[in-house]
Amino acid sequence: MPSYKLTVAYIGTEYCGFQVQPNGPTIQGELMKAGISLFGEDVTVTGASRTDSGVHAKGQVVVLKGSKDIPARKVPMAMNVRLPDDIVIVDAQPVADLWHPRYCNHHKTYEYKIFNGAIQFPQDKKDSYHFKRQLDIGAMKEAAAKYVGTHDFESYSSSGKSTEDTIRTIYWVDITEVRPDMLSVRVCGNGFLYNMVRIMVGTLLDVGVGKIDQGTIECSLSERNRALAGHTAPAHGLTLLEIDYMDEKEKDRV
Amino acid sequence: MPSYKLTVAYIGTEYCGFQVQPNGPTIQGELMKAGISLFGEDVTVTGASRTDSGVHAKGQVVVLKGSKDIPARKVPMAMNVRLPDDIVIVDAQPVADLWHPRYCNHHKTYEYKIFNGAIQFPQDKKDSYHFKRQLDIGAMKEAAAKYVGTHDFESYSSSGKSTEDTIRTIYWVDITEVRPDMLSVRVCGNGFLYNMVRIMVGTLLDVGVGKIDQGTIECSLSERNRALAGHTAPAHGLTLLEIDYMDEKEKDRV
Repeated sequence: MPSYKLTVAYIGTEYCGFQVQPNGPTIQGELMKAGISLFGEDVTVTGASRTDSGVHAKGQVVVLKGSKDIPARKVPMAMNVRLPDDIVIVDAQPVADLWHPRYCNHHKTYEYKIFNGAIQFPQDKKDSYHFKRQLDIGAMKEAAAKYVGTHDFESYSSSGKSTEDTIRTIYWVDITEVRPDMLSVRVCGNGFLYNMVRIMVGTLLDVGVGKIDQGTIECSLSERNRALAGHTAPAHGLTLLEIDYMDEKEKDRV
Repeated sequence: MPSYKLTVAYIGTEYCGFQVQPNGPTIQGELMKAGISLFGEDVTVTGASRTDSGVHAKGQVVVLKGSKDIPARKVPMAMNVRLPDDIVIVDAQPVADLWHPRYCNHHKTYEYKIFNGAIQFPQDKKDSYHFKRQLDIGAMKEAAAKYVGTHDFESYSSSGKSTEDTIRTIYWVDITEVRPDMLSVRVCGNGFLYNMVRIMVGTLLDVGVGKIDQGTIECSLSERNRALAGHTAPAHGLTLLEIDYMDEKEKDRV
């Protein structure tokens, strides 16, 4: 059964998240429908990241398996004509049958956009959080640097499952003023707990307005207590930018 | 009767252009409805630029006159709650009763975005033109430089009114690769004929693929013949960025 690694971009606004569920349209559901139309009934769609309702992606990775053998280079166009306008397959590569987008070693990069002016442009409403209070960006950067490294991020999870492994490694956090009124927070790590990026961003905003101090950030990483971290920033500011599979790079190098 | 100079941003996708017309919703129509709800029946709305169906704006200028006296600083919020999500008043200033957004001396800046990769991201579909053929950007820049100055732009107009004054001054044209797959063409001038920016961009794209040469660009500016210019690029790539009123700056300086 041919397997394809698809790179998928979408605007999450109209969807109840990535994963199929009974209450409304999902990205996985739309990919299934398009896949069945192209490959026939026997299709599976497995995502690297189960993005939440309202979260966007430019580089989600999905494995699609279908029983028909279609050249990978033809898959994006053939899928795109079967998909709604707000979901696009930007790349397709053949992968081994056992290749799994979550179990293969990878880095994920997310971007969270914060509009920090008085009145938000309509062009920015769908993918940036309108945060009106004045921010101390220097303090936010200082706090963000504390996330880098391997930590127990239990305080930064909404899952509530105490059995879960909550150790994650953050490679870098980058806070940039992309415009005088727009802040971009980019985070790269080896994996993220449920709502982890949104709680990190909410916490950084709480630092930016002086509600949380640098010492509390350190405690939040040593004490496994959700109450020590800040609020959960809303979904629509978040975009899954890229998932980088290191094993493949090693292969390329050989 | 109080007059306000409003700076208006909108996503033009769902509208039949700026100017009120019977066939569908318009920006002016929505501004009238919101204005009547806020100021009462006796409202006029005059735009600086009659943007086409599908064209966007970040800095359209509109004069709104209403019979109620509301402080200008309160007008944006009060209008925005009455407007659809894709139209936003970003600024309001009081102006003299006789101040007219088209007859006062100004510079207008437009941006046209061209997506020049194989597969367009959903995030770029609404405001960039997907042009797939490879472009000679150097040739496009060389041609763009010829537009700068005062010329008869009759060849760059769809209006067909031979009586119209077709002399315009272009201050600068700037072509930038904002991303490896995205080109931004920005044009600043003292005024633009009907479809002029879109024909300029279509012509530059025709230069980029070698369909029109530099000599033809020169002829198109000396010969008043629409056939010498290129195709009209589609509306959805165009955004009215800014309208800059010089008289006000002079006033500020005093």
